[in-house]
Amino acid sequence: MKRIADRLVIAGVGLIGGSLALALRARGVVGEVVGLGRSAENLRVARRRGIIDRAERDPERAARGADLVVVAAPVQTIAPVVGALARALPPTAVITDAGSVKSPVVAAVERVLGVGAGRFCGSHPIAGTEHSGAAAALPDLLEGRRCIVTPGVRTAATTRRRVHALWEAAGMRVEEMPAAVHDRIFALVSHLPHVAAFALVNAVADADRQGARHALAYAAGGFRDWTRIAASSPEMWRDIFLANGAELLRALDGFSATLERLRDAIALGDGVAIAGELTRAQTTRRRLGAASAAVPGRLRARRGARRSRGR
Amino acid sequence: MKRIADRLVIAGVGLIGGSLALALRARGVVGEVVGLGRSAENLRVARRRGIIDRAERDPERAARGADLVVVAAPVQTIAPVVGALARALPPTAVITDAGSVKSPVVAAVERVLGVGAGRFCGSHPIAGTEHSGAAAALPDLLEGRRCIVTPGVRTAATTRRRVHALWEAAGMRVEEMPAAVHDRIFALVSHLPHVAAFALVNAVADADRQGARHALAYAAGGFRDWTRIAASSPEMWRDIFLANGAELLRALDGFSATLERLRDAIALGDGVAIAGELTRAQTTRRRLGAASAAVPGRLRARRGARRSRGR
Repeated sequence: MKRIADRLVIAGVGLIGGSLALALRARGVVGEVVGLGRSAENLRVARRRGIIDRAERDPERAARGADLVVVAAPVQTIAPVVGALARALPPTAVITDAGSVKSPVVAAVERVLGVGAGRFCGSHPIAGTEHSGAAAALPDLLEGRRCIVTPGVRTAATTRRRVHALWEAAGMRVEEMPAAVHDRIFALVSHLPHVAAFALVNAVADADRQGARHALAYAAGGFRDWTRIAASSPEMWRDIFLANGAELLRALDGFSATLERLRDAIALGDGVAIAGELTRAQTTRRRLGAASAAVPGRLRARRGARRSRGR
Repeated sequence: MKRIADRLVIAGVGLIGGSLALALRARGVVGEVVGLGRSAENLRVARRRGIIDRAERDPERAARGADLVVVAAPVQTIAPVVGALARALPPTAVITDAGSVKSPVVAAVERVLGVGAGRFCGSHPIAGTEHSGAAAALPDLLEGRRCIVTPGVRTAATTRRRVHALWEAAGMRVEEMPAAVHDRIFALVSHLPHVAAFALVNAVADADRQGARHALAYAAGGFRDWTRIAASSPEMWRDIFLANGAELLRALDGFSATLERLRDAIALGDGVAIAGELTRAQTTRRRLGAASAAVPGRLRARRGARRSRGR
């Protein structure tokens, strides 16, 4: 496979950044991998696990001589990190990110880079587990998963090509869409379910405290699966919810409407209306189930075993 | 192991009834197993799979000479089925059910049995998958899972002992609680998550139709896991929602409150409030995660593999 970078900077050597580095190293398509981060302890773990060759806590030192940068940091910090790196980056270096929200990130990065915005192209690799940090990185976390790439009007053709090549080298299926379309879709299929899962866990905890004797002790099976995503990092999700606020509120309003419809049917004891809503959901959900059969069995089994999921 | 019945009637040879029969037969603790059902096709599957020895579609024929009956039918049909069987059951035969809602079922069965109510004790084996029917039954579905038993004031001591012995023989951990307490707890940890999952799938489908370009096509990872329960039987869940309506509405109100709190914080861009809600959920959810470590690893892995879940 063709080398995708001689010196790659991973800014934020967490679950995604670390897994990307492991995948690229396993395929021998990168030269030196430089890890940039704030936590010395996390960088130590990354070095010990062979994720990075060199750890830096100073952006300018990390950027020197690099030809590719991936900012896999919380969405609110992507633009400032890009700004700090850009000062010392060679002029041909290309930059991408791994944020779960795209429109505000792309806009902020373009503001920061100004006339140099052509070297940036936004990305969202759809992968993750409820764990975080370099210790949780896995060489095959990204393999076979989708990566949404959101080039803007200012993105240079070379940048776009190199960002495609990067994710493909890590085994991902790359797909392009406008940043705004990405944000609407992921508000629905990712951010909304997370809001609901967090709210559900809190509702059960509230009831538990208000006398529903040890309800949480019986929270097994479906509830446990359903709310696993509520064990994810509060800071990361707070930032995602804030960054994608407008689309998320729109998605929440749609959810409130379908929830209310079901609630009314239950309150009225209207079995026909309840069955109507449930059948519609079952039909939709079964269609999704069938679609997942497209993922090769071997991959699916491995994913199930480590409960990996998209954000 | 001690024999728990010479002639066992399984009324409703579906996922739970069928799995129970398979478990009891594997351990050699039952004599003849009679399957009672309305669908000739499902009963044929049950016979072909060796789940039952004999298939009956007439309750009186099924009941004759039986000493133990498990009604694993939709909650609304449990009391009528008990009534139909009771006419032909020997006086020492004991009856239980497998319904996911207990107070209304127990009350209805007690009304039907009248002075004979001492032979009944309600049960709720906490197990399931999103599949149904005899074809989906598994010999180890119940193994290591909890079974809630809800004896009433009228339940005879012998009945209670035999119902305990039944579920324990299938490998379950039996626990007792009042029917009303059961219904409040399962409204929160099972019925509410199902309502939310059905509503979520419908909300995404609505948005998909209203122009959020192919949102469903991106419904991978978390969303897929999260909503797997929405693929469950609409009829079964309609009946559960109707039967446990009062407790479910109370649980839904609690959920609306926590959802609204999070929505307001997002609308106001209040990062501190969002982080507060998310951290509370994460802490609660992580406590549950730790508790699940009590399940032996071997069992847990097998369950993960077939994605079994409680109702």
